[in-house]
Amino acid sequence: MSWTPSGRHLIAGEWIAGTMTFRSEPAHGPAHDFAVGTTELVDRACRAAEAAFTAFSAKTCEQRAIFLEIIAEEIDRRGEAVTLIGTEETGLPEGRLNGERARTTGQLKLFAEHIRKGAHLDARIDAAQPDRQPAPRPEIRLVQRPIGPVAVFGASNFPLAFSTAGGDTAAALAAGCPVVVKGHSAHPGTGEIIAEAIAAAVERTGMPAGVFSLIQGGRRDVGTGLVTHPAIKAVGFTGSLAGGRALFDLCAQRPEPIPFFGELGSVNPMFLLPAATAARAETIGSGWAGSLTLGAGQFCTKPGIAVVVDGPEADRFTGAAKSALEKVAPQTMLTQGIAAAYHDGVERMRASNAVAPVLSVESAGRDAAPNLFETNGSAWLADHSLSEEVFGSLGLVVRVGSPEEMLTLAESFQGQLTATIHMDDADLGLARDLLPILERRAGRLLVNGFPTGVEVVDSMVHGGPYPASTNFGATSVGTMSIRRFLRPVAYQNFPAGLLPQDLRN
Amino acid sequence: MSWTPSGRHLIAGEWIAGTMTFRSEPAHGPAHDFAVGTTELVDRACRAAEAAFTAFSAKTCEQRAIFLEIIAEEIDRRGEAVTLIGTEETGLPEGRLNGERARTTGQLKLFAEHIRKGAHLDARIDAAQPDRQPAPRPEIRLVQRPIGPVAVFGASNFPLAFSTAGGDTAAALAAGCPVVVKGHSAHPGTGEIIAEAIAAAVERTGMPAGVFSLIQGGRRDVGTGLVTHPAIKAVGFTGSLAGGRALFDLCAQRPEPIPFFGELGSVNPMFLLPAATAARAETIGSGWAGSLTLGAGQFCTKPGIAVVVDGPEADRFTGAAKSALEKVAPQTMLTQGIAAAYHDGVERMRASNAVAPVLSVESAGRDAAPNLFETNGSAWLADHSLSEEVFGSLGLVVRVGSPEEMLTLAESFQGQLTATIHMDDADLGLARDLLPILERRAGRLLVNGFPTGVEVVDSMVHGGPYPASTNFGATSVGTMSIRRFLRPVAYQNFPAGLLPQDLRN
Repeated sequence: MSWTPSGRHLIAGEWIAGTMTFRSEPAHGPAHDFAVGTTELVDRACRAAEAAFTAFSAKTCEQRAIFLEIIAEEIDRRGEAVTLIGTEETGLPEGRLNGERARTTGQLKLFAEHIRKGAHLDARIDAAQPDRQPAPRPEIRLVQRPIGPVAVFGASNFPLAFSTAGGDTAAALAAGCPVVVKGHSAHPGTGEIIAEAIAAAVERTGMPAGVFSLIQGGRRDVGTGLVTHPAIKAVGFTGSLAGGRALFDLCAQRPEPIPFFGELGSVNPMFLLPAATAARAETIGSGWAGSLTLGAGQFCTKPGIAVVVDGPEADRFTGAAKSALEKVAPQTMLTQGIAAAYHDGVERMRASNAVAPVLSVESAGRDAAPNLFETNGSAWLADHSLSEEVFGSLGLVVRVGSPEEMLTLAESFQGQLTATIHMDDADLGLARDLLPILERRAGRLLVNGFPTGVEVVDSMVHGGPYPASTNFGATSVGTMSIRRFLRPVAYQNFPAGLLPQDLRN
Repeated sequence: MSWTPSGRHLIAGEWIAGTMTFRSEPAHGPAHDFAVGTTELVDRACRAAEAAFTAFSAKTCEQRAIFLEIIAEEIDRRGEAVTLIGTEETGLPEGRLNGERARTTGQLKLFAEHIRKGAHLDARIDAAQPDRQPAPRPEIRLVQRPIGPVAVFGASNFPLAFSTAGGDTAAALAAGCPVVVKGHSAHPGTGEIIAEAIAAAVERTGMPAGVFSLIQGGRRDVGTGLVTHPAIKAVGFTGSLAGGRALFDLCAQRPEPIPFFGELGSVNPMFLLPAATAARAETIGSGWAGSLTLGAGQFCTKPGIAVVVDGPEADRFTGAAKSALEKVAPQTMLTQGIAAAYHDGVERMRASNAVAPVLSVESAGRDAAPNLFETNGSAWLADHSLSEEVFGSLGLVVRVGSPEEMLTLAESFQGQLTATIHMDDADLGLARDLLPILERRAGRLLVNGFPTGVEVVDSMVHGGPYPASTNFGATSVGTMSIRRFLRPVAYQNFPAGLLPQDLRN
């Protein structure tokens, strides 16, 4: 399937070219020019989203479910072209793009199924009590209603599942909220073809045009203009701590503050308890290497730090991880900038007196080889920078002197998306001590597994205390993520004909 | 029952006097001296709350339910003394204090019942799929866990139901979060006796002492110190827009931002549709007067503005409201400061060229008489200050030229706690046009009722878009308010013995 990006924005059903353009930087294949976003376009898209809100939010769950399913269908119809432009732009392998497309359409279909069930409405009815003393009780009904237009920032590392029609967009549309996406400049063509699919679905289902817009790349003022636009009522964001915090601050400082659901990454620590390490140091070590290098280490859930009690078992674990990592060839990273940041991170580790290299491989340009370092508990505790995320296949082993030091270390971690315990039955006591600490620090806790591979299910939590996310009550993956874009409204003593459809008997 | 306040703070089970004191300003009866809060005490209370968290959050729902019920029992045991000090400090009548105590203990018991049912846990289980291709699916379970210590700011206008053991405290304790209350200086003795009841319940049920602290009054630095303390993970606040926004900003600016659940009040507009006004202008007018003057107009849900189509029906409505208000004697306000602000608000209306007095009664000191003004739609739209809340029994009638102008007016309202439609069957068309506008602007919508008298039930929403509240996804009344203090945590592949009690089969 031959497809060439037009380089235009999609604003409420219209494809709009720009006078200023930027050129894409694909890992391979041809580069293309894309229009640069402007604050005028932001305003236009947001106004269109606001104009579409009443009609879109009045659609039934069934109508919105069909809309989501047809978006999925239109994406699959373009499947071959999506994979082609996606692999060119990101350097990710074909299998990954195909799998990510399945996840993306799966998310859309999951939300369709979810809103058909109606559980997200959390409808409640308190019957009237006309004879109550000293005053009668009126009938009150509650339902969750969409909050308004939502801004979504595409992620660099998931060109499909966390971008144009990714989890945030799917959840917002399912909730009944129009969406304005700021496309990621790392994969503008992938963004465009997905926007095309959404536009086709809008047309086929007769949804109001303003229900979706994509503004390509653009400078800082596009992001700023988007989150500060009065029509925008919530923001979904996946990206860096610095960028996310800046946008969070803007949202909080608005005359009318709005929620900013930022997923800002984490180091996803793993804790190796003694009996488990003794029993299967090698299995855990090679499993870790696999999780660490998946997608060139460019997952938010990459387990970057392993904490293990020092001794011969720790040697076996580290040795196994090293030998597995040695077999992993350098991988193409998502962008030149991300690769450069990875090389910097490796350099920083190498230059530190507090860490020792276990496996340190030179790599340059957009390719990156895995790297493994180790340090001890007190050195790690003394150097705050060692607890910061390095995006890419870099692992750090922290050897602690005792289980007690492991607990101290656990307490010193900031908020995380995930935390993992490797344990056997004999480790249960230590695991029980560790659990309440980790529970305060992460959104998802794992036993004897690896955190990469986030299941899109009802029970998934992809979020956690700051800085893993800016909102520790929220998840950006799984059906519960729809809650971010809903607000409760109570209807007191309403005649049946005036109640929202969802609340009628 | 004779009871005299000791004037001390309660910090994690210890009663602590202060070197600096302030004197209470009761409406009648003796004044008392109370210790002034300090940032050192804030730190001590917050550390104690953090220290108590693990033990308290590990209690079963049943244990916490009993704790809440015993708090209610200990409050009722002090009932006579609570009413005495409450009426003295606030000037509210005895019947109101007794009723508010019933609401307060009712809230505690409702939360006890609610957490026993377990619905707040929102437990979800996705079964493992060991044979799934291309990779097996692990078992994942989700449960809502408490977020950590919560700071609560008592409200001036509800010395019991929104203060020391009020809705925020009840919801936080039910969720499993220790609470640090900053008592309101308008009713420090009422706060102390309620703290005494909580302390007795802590002791009777063997809860960790740090689960509750009350810091009395104090200067601005106490509030600042509380919301910026690293141990505090969320704030419940009821109060003014200016004060609330300042604290909200501090919460958002923390190194680790936390949610601020501020309920900042509103004018709760009422819309009188033509057929209903024609049919029962007098009933609506006198009903409004009753709602407007309830509790001396010191409810967050006081319907301060009535919008009506100009004409003889509007005259009948306004006339009925006026004659009902004339019969209401001046009422004692909660504090000298609140009364002074009310007198200022009345003066501001009187001085405005845009409004005309309907009933304008002189009052001074802590007593306040009802006042009624009127204006027209264009004057109201031109003067933003007319849409601001005046705390107290002041009503403003806005006469619009047409149903269309009523819609324009509705659109210009900021976020509200409530909005009310008075309608008959013949008004259904206009009501349908009005509804999507009001739904965006309020947390609770009423038909043919008055918004004062907030039911504490599953379906209640007491919140709404900013500035009614700082978090339009939350409610501060009703069982759904517990959600503010919970966060989802996912447990992947956990052995049964390590799962939280609430998640076991």
